Amino acid sequence: MGTVIDERALDVLFRQARTHNGWDGEPVGEDLLRAVWDLAKMGPTSANCSPARIVFVISPEAKRKLKPCLIEGNIDKTMAAPATAIIGHDLAFHDRLPELFPHTDARSWFVGKQALIETTAFRNGTLQGAYFILAARAMGLDCGPMSGFDNAKVDEAFFAGTAIQSNFLCNVGYGDPDKLHPRSPRLSFDEACKVV
Amino acid sequence: MGTVIDERALDVLFRQARTHNGWDGEPVGEDLLRAVWDLAKMGPTSANCSPARIVFVISPEAKRKLKPCLIEGNIDKTMAAPATAIIGHDLAFHDRLPELFPHTDARSWFVGKQALIETTAFRNGTLQGAYFILAARAMGLDCGPMSGFDNAKVDEAFFAGTAIQSNFLCNVGYGDPDKLHPRSPRLSFDEACKVV
Repeated sequence: MGTVIDERALDVLFRQARTHNGWDGEPVGEDLLRAVWDLAKMGPTSANCSPARIVFVISPEAKRKLKPCLIEGNIDKTMAAPATAIIGHDLAFHDRLPELFPHTDARSWFVGKQALIETTAFRNGTLQGAYFILAARAMGLDCGPMSGFDNAKVDEAFFAGTAIQSNFLCNVGYGDPDKLHPRSPRLSFDEACKVV
Repeated sequence: MGTVIDERALDVLFRQARTHNGWDGEPVGEDLLRAVWDLAKMGPTSANCSPARIVFVISPEAKRKLKPCLIEGNIDKTMAAPATAIIGHDLAFHDRLPELFPHTDARSWFVGKQALIETTAFRNGTLQGAYFILAARAMGLDCGPMSGFDNAKVDEAFFAGTAIQSNFLCNVGYGDPDKLHPRSPRLSFDEACKVV
């Protein structure tokens, strides 16, 4: 029987954690973002392909670049957040496989196979985005993940000249509990799962 | 400053956790799978859309159906696993939005927009797959996630007549540490992240 983490950790990661819309004003330092990445990077990806690439938008200039990419309902909370993580994935991820998965020629599985590259980058970059959210919570941060933005505009503003594409955004900081929406319901095991 | 979970939980979830290839023979009961889901379901999805659907393959008949869908390198470890989760997503997820996101007509954002439906289901179902992996680890289980299988064959065998598509597989059980491969390297913060 393996190790089960304690109730408090389950609350922080899953049960009490909420998607935040307001922030208490405390900044988020780069050291903390590095600590979050050092946890998130350990999560599993297919052939250890690790396609996620993250840009942390913190400076006023970078916020000005991000603002016109957002849908209206996401502007105020994002401009007020201490940091916004742009979770992207690198469509050239397979060029790192000789280092990341050194015991076989995994790069050759992908070269020239654009559909496989895109699906693999999206799936595994998204897994890493979820690891990032839970790692941030584990380090005491609150998250506000969002899909409400123009991916092409973000790619032009932040990833021009690279093979990186944006996936989703995640505000990070210390949330203001007064600005939470009521918790929405979830699907039960019997609605979403089946044992066969 | 928020709550930071303890070092032991960080080890169990991220730092010491490994992708397992062998299993110690102890079964995984349905009660435990329900407890894992009850954590994983709490993770955030876009508009609470919750598209993930999971089939847990446990019985000998279900394993026989799964076997011909796997690439050769994944057959033995999967047939030996106490349970294999087929993580899928429902392309009709938006039909549940009136319950899951009741304060606006979110269903209408998706009806007839097949590309948006597919991207949203894949992204959010994958996030939920990652929450599942970390929730399973939190409950003391070990995981062996895999993309090495034929998605179309799994869909035909397990999701025929539904709008559910398979995403990835995840063996769950109690891992045999003697069958672990050496840990592969990860990209550092400076290789994968940037602060702007």
